[in-house]
Amino acid sequence: MTYARAMTKPVDIAPATGRLGVLTPGMGAVASTFIAGVLATRAGHAVPVGSLSQLAHIRLGKREENRNPLIREFVPLADLGDLVFGGWDPISPNALEAARTAGVLEERDLGPISAELEGIVAMDAVFDQRWVKRLEGTRVKTTTDKWAQAEALIADIENFRIANDCDRLVMVWCGSTEAYQEASAVHMTIESFEAGLRANDDNIAPSQIYAYAAIMSGVPFANGAPNLSVDLPCMRELAAREGVPIAGKDFKTGQTWLKTLLAPGLKARMLGLRGWYSTNILGNRDGEVLDDPDNFKTKEVSKLGVIDSVLQPEVYPDLYGNVDHVVRINYYPPRGDNKEGWDNIDIFGWMGYPMQIKVNFLCRDSILAAPIVLDLALFMDLANRAGQSGVQEWLSFYFKAPQAATPVPAEHDLFIQQTKLKNTLREWMGEDAVTHSEAG
Amino acid sequence: MTYARAMTKPVDIAPATGRLGVLTPGMGAVASTFIAGVLATRAGHAVPVGSLSQLAHIRLGKREENRNPLIREFVPLADLGDLVFGGWDPISPNALEAARTAGVLEERDLGPISAELEGIVAMDAVFDQRWVKRLEGTRVKTTTDKWAQAEALIADIENFRIANDCDRLVMVWCGSTEAYQEASAVHMTIESFEAGLRANDDNIAPSQIYAYAAIMSGVPFANGAPNLSVDLPCMRELAAREGVPIAGKDFKTGQTWLKTLLAPGLKARMLGLRGWYSTNILGNRDGEVLDDPDNFKTKEVSKLGVIDSVLQPEVYPDLYGNVDHVVRINYYPPRGDNKEGWDNIDIFGWMGYPMQIKVNFLCRDSILAAPIVLDLALFMDLANRAGQSGVQEWLSFYFKAPQAATPVPAEHDLFIQQTKLKNTLREWMGEDAVTHSEAG
Amino acid sequence: MTYARAMTKPVDIAPATGRLGVLTPGMGAVASTFIAGVLATRAGHAVPVGSLSQLAHIRLGKREENRNPLIREFVPLADLGDLVFGGWDPISPNALEAARTAGVLEERDLGPISAELEGIVAMDAVFDQRWVKRLEGTRVKTTTDKWAQAEALIADIENFRIANDCDRLVMVWCGSTEAYQEASAVHMTIESFEAGLRANDDNIAPSQIYAYAAIMSGVPFANGAPNLSVDLPCMRELAAREGVPIAGKDFKTGQTWLKTLLAPGLKARMLGLRGWYSTNILGNRDGEVLDDPDNFKTKEVSKLGVIDSVLQPEVYPDLYGNVDHVVRINYYPPRGDNKEGWDNIDIFGWMGYPMQIKVNFLCRDSILAAPIVLDLALFMDLANRAGQSGVQEWLSFYFKAPQAATPVPAEHDLFIQQTKLKNTLREWMGEDAVTHSEAG
Amino acid sequence: MTYARAMTKPVDIAPATGRLGVLTPGMGAVASTFIAGVLATRAGHAVPVGSLSQLAHIRLGKREENRNPLIREFVPLADLGDLVFGGWDPISPNALEAARTAGVLEERDLGPISAELEGIVAMDAVFDQRWVKRLEGTRVKTTTDKWAQAEALIADIENFRIANDCDRLVMVWCGSTEAYQEASAVHMTIESFEAGLRANDDNIAPSQIYAYAAIMSGVPFANGAPNLSVDLPCMRELAAREGVPIAGKDFKTGQTWLKTLLAPGLKARMLGLRGWYSTNILGNRDGEVLDDPDNFKTKEVSKLGVIDSVLQPEVYPDLYGNVDHVVRINYYPPRGDNKEGWDNIDIFGWMGYPMQIKVNFLCRDSILAAPIVLDLALFMDLANRAGQSGVQEWLSFYFKAPQAATPVPAEHDLFIQQTKLKNTLREWMGEDAVTHSEAG
Repeated sequence: MTYARAMTKPVDIAPATGRLGVLTPGMGAVASTFIAGVLATRAGHAVPVGSLSQLAHIRLGKREENRNPLIREFVPLADLGDLVFGGWDPISPNALEAARTAGVLEERDLGPISAELEGIVAMDAVFDQRWVKRLEGTRVKTTTDKWAQAEALIADIENFRIANDCDRLVMVWCGSTEAYQEASAVHMTIESFEAGLRANDDNIAPSQIYAYAAIMSGVPFANGAPNLSVDLPCMRELAAREGVPIAGKDFKTGQTWLKTLLAPGLKARMLGLRGWYSTNILGNRDGEVLDDPDNFKTKEVSKLGVIDSVLQPEVYPDLYGNVDHVVRINYYPPRGDNKEGWDNIDIFGWMGYPMQIKVNFLCRDSILAAPIVLDLALFMDLANRAGQSGVQEWLSFYFKAPQAATPVPAEHDLFIQQTKLKNTLREWMGEDAVTHSEAG
Repeated sequence: MTYARAMTKPVDIAPATGRLGVLTPGMGAVASTFIAGVLATRAGHAVPVGSLSQLAHIRLGKREENRNPLIREFVPLADLGDLVFGGWDPISPNALEAARTAGVLEERDLGPISAELEGIVAMDAVFDQRWVKRLEGTRVKTTTDKWAQAEALIADIENFRIANDCDRLVMVWCGSTEAYQEASAVHMTIESFEAGLRANDDNIAPSQIYAYAAIMSGVPFANGAPNLSVDLPCMRELAAREGVPIAGKDFKTGQTWLKTLLAPGLKARMLGLRGWYSTNILGNRDGEVLDDPDNFKTKEVSKLGVIDSVLQPEVYPDLYGNVDHVVRINYYPPRGDNKEGWDNIDIFGWMGYPMQIKVNFLCRDSILAAPIVLDLALFMDLANRAGQSGVQEWLSFYFKAPQAATPVPAEHDLFIQQTKLKNTLREWMGEDAVTHSEAG
Repeated sequence: MTYARAMTKPVDIAPATGRLGVLTPGMGAVASTFIAGVLATRAGHAVPVGSLSQLAHIRLGKREENRNPLIREFVPLADLGDLVFGGWDPISPNALEAARTAGVLEERDLGPISAELEGIVAMDAVFDQRWVKRLEGTRVKTTTDKWAQAEALIADIENFRIANDCDRLVMVWCGSTEAYQEASAVHMTIESFEAGLRANDDNIAPSQIYAYAAIMSGVPFANGAPNLSVDLPCMRELAAREGVPIAGKDFKTGQTWLKTLLAPGLKARMLGLRGWYSTNILGNRDGEVLDDPDNFKTKEVSKLGVIDSVLQPEVYPDLYGNVDHVVRINYYPPRGDNKEGWDNIDIFGWMGYPMQIKVNFLCRDSILAAPIVLDLALFMDLANRAGQSGVQEWLSFYFKAPQAATPVPAEHDLFIQQTKLKNTLREWMGEDAVTHSEAG
Repeated sequence: MTYARAMTKPVDIAPATGRLGVLTPGMGAVASTFIAGVLATRAGHAVPVGSLSQLAHIRLGKREENRNPLIREFVPLADLGDLVFGGWDPISPNALEAARTAGVLEERDLGPISAELEGIVAMDAVFDQRWVKRLEGTRVKTTTDKWAQAEALIADIENFRIANDCDRLVMVWCGSTEAYQEASAVHMTIESFEAGLRANDDNIAPSQIYAYAAIMSGVPFANGAPNLSVDLPCMRELAAREGVPIAGKDFKTGQTWLKTLLAPGLKARMLGLRGWYSTNILGNRDGEVLDDPDNFKTKEVSKLGVIDSVLQPEVYPDLYGNVDHVVRINYYPPRGDNKEGWDNIDIFGWMGYPMQIKVNFLCRDSILAAPIVLDLALFMDLANRAGQSGVQEWLSFYFKAPQAATPVPAEHDLFIQQTKLKNTLREWMGEDAVTHSEAG
């Protein structure tokens, strides 16, 4: 095996002193599962399975050096004991009620931490039903003026920081998928966006107001939904100006996670792909929201990009030039939060002979998303302390539709994303990157 | 992205002049599908899907350099037009009958090349029913003396070389799985093995006699079955002494291929694994052979190693320390050569909550194996011309139970294997290895 | 076992002399597969698997009497040798081209009967794209006047009868699903319908014009699609007046067939049902048509009725009072005519504990439909000769949404339908019905 | 619809006065789930889903009569309030510990009835590890003399009857599957069997001693396992002599239940069958026992009979004459009591074209078995009071390998079995049997 000689010196990373506030717009199934899991882990009742920041090791140097520390012992992450939680929600009054309504966690897990959860009260949300037709918001800010909404959120953030004595904050969007939209004139520059806020421009969605408020407050923003949010020219400009890390979009949880395993596997073996049909059934609030075609469109676009990006049909027209890719989501109440996917994959091999792979994934949406929220909170905070700003492409590992930091599109291949994440950390800490060639 | 500075100068590789003979012990479903596909590709009737050596591109240098040649234009592989085919089989008289009996390829694909296939006549096999109880060999060498069998095979090889005017030969085992055995005293040294041949030692299986004959003839040997064959101290010693490349074992086709996709994916995400149940149904000769518990044992051992190797239970006891892994194969005639797998995978996430993945793979065994035969033939020949000898660990990508070149166990993770294969080729040609860190 | 004493004398059934013409509006995948199969069976090349009229036995009398003739030897059905075929299609010129375009049957099956198939030329269709947006009809009647269209069809029928020297005719709708509609004023009486034809009423769909023409010509009409066609007051009135048997609607082929197996099975065991999610992928013309929401609606209504009808939620509110039933169809070209279904069924048992059944059906739509066309043609002709008219509820066995002969809804339970079919035949022939009580 | 005129007068059925003791040899997952469910139902906390005796209605007379009472209001069954429970177990001390070890029911369901469950203490079992190698019995009778064991069981029964003030008793075998055996000389007559008991004949299995003790005590015996038990000439003779109802064998729960739905459905449609592969994974005590090949053989024979019996290959050789039927059970601890089945069914239709059905059943073994225990207890008691003796073939509905009352084999078709059950009840009560012919 050969090893890359480090090209960069280690970067300076400020230490993780004091408390880190984690703010989630949306305090429903995902956020409450995330919070409960961190509390339970702190109390020694649970293992934060799925979290690289807590559980994964990272190999350093040559194989025979036998250096394989935990990531959290290698890079200076905030400690779980230093996290405090807050958020906004149009429906849930607090994290306990949110968790009980979601029905993800069993009572035996919620019981021991119920008082703590109940104390995490949701702030009134910036909410507009035009973007999420299937939900009725009752705990919402009274003003419908967008500029005033932004100011209210900025005040919320500042008040939270003071009340909780936070050294630093991060924001992770855990709210609903909004109706589909494409970037429009108002999203082009900071100037046009701020003018739009003042003019109450219809094209500005609530998630964008949260993103704006976060960045203006110097708070890193990670986007767990397929909403445009920070994937807009004005937000990139703002993040650069304010020196704030941003990342998105759309947590890569169940079906798309599997897709970014399987598609690279097909390509590794030069097996052809003729079609991929994916259907999902879920019965939670998310499923209800996505039952509306406008909101589904947003999700669909996020989900459809994966295959082309991984398979490079332009390089491999014989193998990947004629792929029918269909993605469906159906609201099916009996399933509750247990999203279930069924994928039919039509492949072909030697001399074009067809084969089929069917994958049935009985997953739990929030259980898969919660550790992503934790990792993003800690890694975005790390990036911030490391002086990074703008799009954190090394976190594409966590996203269905990763934002690129440069004009070159971001990678979707889960294994390349993982390599990128780990080699970025190695690089920041002055360690060599790893290759796997024969010489090693 | 950073790039590894090449540590080695390009190696000297002799050009691929003249004809390359590909010899397959076993001329059944796999070998006949492989041969038919090469013939059809040469005639322009088929695409050799699944073959990296024919279809895959390889990135060179930095992304922005845009150098992305086909592998076969990058390294000096033998041309398909220069291949000639031969083999041994205890049942099939020639490649055409073998293909028709196997029922893998349709008549419309066999028709145009039937005369060529019929001309590829199987030599009488070294066969011993004690190792494959379910088969009756009728086209077998009359001598049952092992030393005489080895000499007969060496003569077969030499005769084939002359008759077909071959510049070089390679041998790829495409025969049946033999009954289970572990290495015994007779397998320890060249000396003990040759003594065993002379003494007709019961512990020497037919596949070992083929391997011995190949290496003694200077012919690289790749092992497509889980038989020990070249995975024995005596064979390593012999390969080193004779300067011959060897590689094995057991083609990584359907279910195990998927396993080495999915297991690394689980680990990448730090998702726990509680159990993995795999069953297979197949109705071809292979299924019949594996219906015997002795032969199944051999296959089972080969298949079971994958998960532990990838998941590192010693590093991650909470996640992978308690995995029930069950693998079954059932002979089911209606399926024919279309091996079908069903996997149930019990995983767990955040706070230990369980989830399930079920994978149903309607695959075609020989269709997946044929391009592996081709790639191994061409890459083993390349290694030979590049002056390599002994275990070719960079080809672990193709094997269920890859042999290691060193005391460190070989990698099972398909993506690491792929990186290793490509970076080895880059290295041999004097190109830099590729990493994916943020700086790039 | 006790046996019902026959309450009715045998009915008089005219013998099946001469030729029987089978007319199919729609000469696409289903009709061409049906025709090809009959021709191949006549030629001794195929077995008409799936056809009760050809293959099923029927028990007569007590078990110990050992009387178990083939249905076709028990009741006087037309002989396959006496069938002649005709039809209309807006796209296919003849049955051979239809079969080749459909891709259902392989060339080795079509070859020997290709001349016969080519000779079965489709007549120009009555077609109106407003009812089937996804199809472009090119071989259509030029008149758009509905009364003239009806007259043209009646003339087609008469010409076919004469040209082919038919003793009798039957018509089986094998065309596309039309856009959704409900019965309107124009469909209430013969008078209103005929006035509508003359007035070119927008509510009259092409399939209704075929039904009208058939009944007016004394030709029994069976409806293989979910279109209303003969499921209209005016058509019932007309069938009664003209003494013509009618039956419908929507061939019960793959997923619904399975549903009417599984739902009665759940109920037999008093297992509860919480939800049933069904999705289908198919890539044929039918799939393309159903990709339009208007046409899908028609199919959806037909498919959704099944569960309630079988499970009687009003009688079993605890078990079946809260069922989420979702049915989806997705156009997915790689699948071709091989419609594939995936069903997820959420059941519950003892003390309410949940369980799941998942069914993946890799079926072939036209292969399942073809024997139904044959059986309906022969049984409708039998009913006609037996002097029956109006809705033939005893044929509900073949339909997704069976028409009832009386105000009581028709049964959906496949096993009750089967009993009904067989006991009706027994009754017509003067045999006892069968029960299965202990005494027997 | 025509109706069978009742051939028999209603039978005399003694009223269900006093208490009914239900004795289960085996107090593990199935028995404890059964008992807990009855207790919870009595307390109003649960619905006994899956139980015909508690939930099913039965139609009486013609459809338009609208008589559709609950079965338990139609025939004089014992009331749930009158049941008392007892049993024997080699491992569990009482029903509460059994339930907790089994892990079938959740604590929230066990809590409210835990005291009652704890009070149901298992008597020491007649146990012999040679028949169940994988279990270690610790709570077993000390005598190994078979005659003494029989006497001890008879005494246990009598003591239980007195201690619990029971009017009547029934016994339902809920214990393990024993090693495979076929009936031997010792099983031919009462005389030979009793001689065998005295001679400690190796061919007499523990389950036979329970059956003998039950019948000798005048207690109806139903056999939930595939053990021979009462399916022996000596036991039939004894049941006749003592006037005791017997029934068996092997509860028809998950996969076989589905098989007896699907196979009749295929046959109803005259679809051909080429193969059926069934695999099961389960992790409970039952799975552990069946992991031993001797015990699996017993289960396999019970499971394999189904298909031939339903499909009549002798009548339909073209359709069912060449069926490969494979059944496997694998011990897989992660699954616990949640037995999971995967079936692959290879069918063919029109012209022989192949199709596939795959069924994945995530079931819960004990949840499906518990209501069967209840129904059998109540119906066997009913039969007893109705003066019936010998094999109760009308209960075949509940068994994988139903015993026949006459030389004609019993029906496996679930729907015929259901008809038989209901028509038998109708007959006993003097009601007409139901047919479904057109006239009705």
